[in-house]
Amino acid sequence: MTPARQNQPAGPRVVIVGGGFAGLACCRALRGTDTRVTMVDRQNHHLFQPLLYQVATAAMSPANVAAPIRKIVGRWKNVSVALGEATAVDPNARTLRVDDRDFPYDFLVLACGMTHAYFGHDSWAEHAPGLKTVDDALEIRRRILLAFETAELNDDEEARKAELTFVVVGGGPTGVEMAGAIKEIAAESIPRDFKRVDTRSARVVLLEGGDRLLAAYPPNLSERAREDLVSLGVEVRLETIATDIDADGVTLEHAGTSERINSRCVIWAAGLKAEPIGVSLGVETDPSGRVRVNHDLSIPGHPNVFVVGDQMGYDDPETGDPVPGVAQGAIQSGRFVGELIARQVRDSETRRRTFHYRDKGMMATIGRARAVARIGKMTFAGFPAWAMWSLVHIAFLIGFRNRLLAMIEWAGLYVFWSRGARLITGPRRRRP
Amino acid sequence: MTPARQNQPAGPRVVIVGGGFAGLACCRALRGTDTRVTMVDRQNHHLFQPLLYQVATAAMSPANVAAPIRKIVGRWKNVSVALGEATAVDPNARTLRVDDRDFPYDFLVLACGMTHAYFGHDSWAEHAPGLKTVDDALEIRRRILLAFETAELNDDEEARKAELTFVVVGGGPTGVEMAGAIKEIAAESIPRDFKRVDTRSARVVLLEGGDRLLAAYPPNLSERAREDLVSLGVEVRLETIATDIDADGVTLEHAGTSERINSRCVIWAAGLKAEPIGVSLGVETDPSGRVRVNHDLSIPGHPNVFVVGDQMGYDDPETGDPVPGVAQGAIQSGRFVGELIARQVRDSETRRRTFHYRDKGMMATIGRARAVARIGKMTFAGFPAWAMWSLVHIAFLIGFRNRLLAMIEWAGLYVFWSRGARLITGPRRRRP
Repeated sequence: MTPARQNQPAGPRVVIVGGGFAGLACCRALRGTDTRVTMVDRQNHHLFQPLLYQVATAAMSPANVAAPIRKIVGRWKNVSVALGEATAVDPNARTLRVDDRDFPYDFLVLACGMTHAYFGHDSWAEHAPGLKTVDDALEIRRRILLAFETAELNDDEEARKAELTFVVVGGGPTGVEMAGAIKEIAAESIPRDFKRVDTRSARVVLLEGGDRLLAAYPPNLSERAREDLVSLGVEVRLETIATDIDADGVTLEHAGTSERINSRCVIWAAGLKAEPIGVSLGVETDPSGRVRVNHDLSIPGHPNVFVVGDQMGYDDPETGDPVPGVAQGAIQSGRFVGELIARQVRDSETRRRTFHYRDKGMMATIGRARAVARIGKMTFAGFPAWAMWSLVHIAFLIGFRNRLLAMIEWAGLYVFWSRGARLITGPRRRRP
Repeated sequence: MTPARQNQPAGPRVVIVGGGFAGLACCRALRGTDTRVTMVDRQNHHLFQPLLYQVATAAMSPANVAAPIRKIVGRWKNVSVALGEATAVDPNARTLRVDDRDFPYDFLVLACGMTHAYFGHDSWAEHAPGLKTVDDALEIRRRILLAFETAELNDDEEARKAELTFVVVGGGPTGVEMAGAIKEIAAESIPRDFKRVDTRSARVVLLEGGDRLLAAYPPNLSERAREDLVSLGVEVRLETIATDIDADGVTLEHAGTSERINSRCVIWAAGLKAEPIGVSLGVETDPSGRVRVNHDLSIPGHPNVFVVGDQMGYDDPETGDPVPGVAQGAIQSGRFVGELIARQVRDSETRRRTFHYRDKGMMATIGRARAVARIGKMTFAGFPAWAMWSLVHIAFLIGFRNRLLAMIEWAGLYVFWSRGARLITGPRRRRP
């Protein structure tokens, strides 16, 4: 490489792949240490994933829920950033392949997260986009808003009904949040703006294969979430799976009988799999592609390679439970590895500890001013849960500017039912 | 068409094509009258064009400079909105073609504006995008930010120099604003975030074919704009034209000698032509495709068809000067036609007036806290002009929310040199 502009600190090279919660927490724990850290990501921004559905539902702009990685780590002198796609690891040569070059490392931390999984039905991806990136969110926003626009111009009653039918596949937090928000757009944000169609008649169907929503939550919160969605006007279909998705809608199956729902806007919130780079490590992965790690979160046979965040498959030895794929799991595992590497660089003889996940609870919103939350063994629902959710999420937003703007946009949404980010960008026509 | 949800007011059908300054001003003048107005646009949003360069240079989010047309006209009971591409007019049948349907009209107002013109070099479009739509701005933002990212990773000195060279073609207001803003990004906003390249060394070249920048301004302001740009570090090349643009840079010509500048980011701000729908009217157009209109802004032979805004070719009979392609020209001509139609609907015998353009002056910014402005015969430059520019543009921004957010984002930019919207979205690689 050409000479650096500034004198780089010396010390072992730590390469972190992924600028999400886990990667940033790891990087933060290594700031100011005697290491040379490189953050690799294929996006130039950290994404505050829990609020991405707000971009998809036109309540916020991408810049309110994402911040350039360079801006976050810019002050940390021992950290540099590389924009590129990491595709494979050679643990024996100790190199990481990024696009067409090899990055040598002394320590490697994979924090690549998860991507959509369509359970072998790759053709569904085109008709039912998932929600993981800013571009995903903009695409979903485009489809939702265009559905109302085309319905307004459509003379055919059947076609118009399909335009005004939205199907969300998967009853986890993302599915619950999306279904509630779409119904609110149709019922509260935009009816006045459409002169020919009554957007309040829009149908929102939420499909869940299991017998309750939010399977990771206590059953009473699952039921409360269902009740809240139903009272908003969302059709919640439990024990119902999608058997086919095409350009015109969804075929679903419930108790052995098949049904067809015509819809022009289907959203996938049902399945995730770990990013495939984990396979190149040559160690055991679970069925979702998560890499099985040791108690110190390193991989078997390579104590200098770690996997953290959603990409990691790890059962807490204290509870026997897997670490859930939530922000706290990512942050705690990322920080754990960052601190471990920092200690080891100071003292190579240091004994490695065992990672324990500290459960801080979980929360999900259901439309405006409603949410469900669990903190420890206590459960909350309705407005108190929503107020907690708002505080926690605003506090988390990275950077003062994002925090301030988010509060203002939310205040606007709450007071005026207004959705300021209602812009359709990208190709105008969904189907040419 | 299917029965409308609400009882539509009766009265003549007015179809307005284009939701820019001219179309909206026309629509506003017709609100609450005994007309049935349909606003047709291929975008769902009105765009505050004078601030679009701020999106392209990562200072603002699209939602801060654009507002959904439905939101603006939603309260006006006699106005409906149709999202679609108007492609042709049949003035004898009195129908407008929008996608695959015909809209009948009693009055038609074309306010379609301008698009980029590459003077017959259509292959340049791919390598030198222009700035007219939100998608254009996001594409330019992506290219500017990616240039720094790839330079940071590049080991080849020559290639890195090309990555850090930006060429803006055209020295009108957009070119001046873009060149100043790019130099500021490189010199002020991001140097700290890059560890290997010195972004302050980035080269910004502004090409202008004429002998001064801002040809529509008084010569002393043109010279001041040039001095301000040069003091920022922009290379201003007058009497210089681009003779070729390809993926690797620009070939230019000055005083008979040819020169090559290697650049991976070229921005087109040099030429515009009227949207081609005007040609379908079958009347005279000028070399830029503007439709020649009568003194009442109707077209010859069809007193119920009007052309307003940038798409209109009209010399004010008082001064003999053409109406300039600025926001004021669009707003005044749109309002004039809206009021004319409203009067004629009330009294079909009313005598039509002659349109006169009222020159309110013009202003352009050159980076942070510098601008040039002319109001009547008075000229202003430097901070006073910039303060005026800021006030005028904030006041113009449509909707309270945009106004407030814009002020906050600008305050952030001014105080912290921070660019909050520094997100690269869309396809990751410029060239596959």
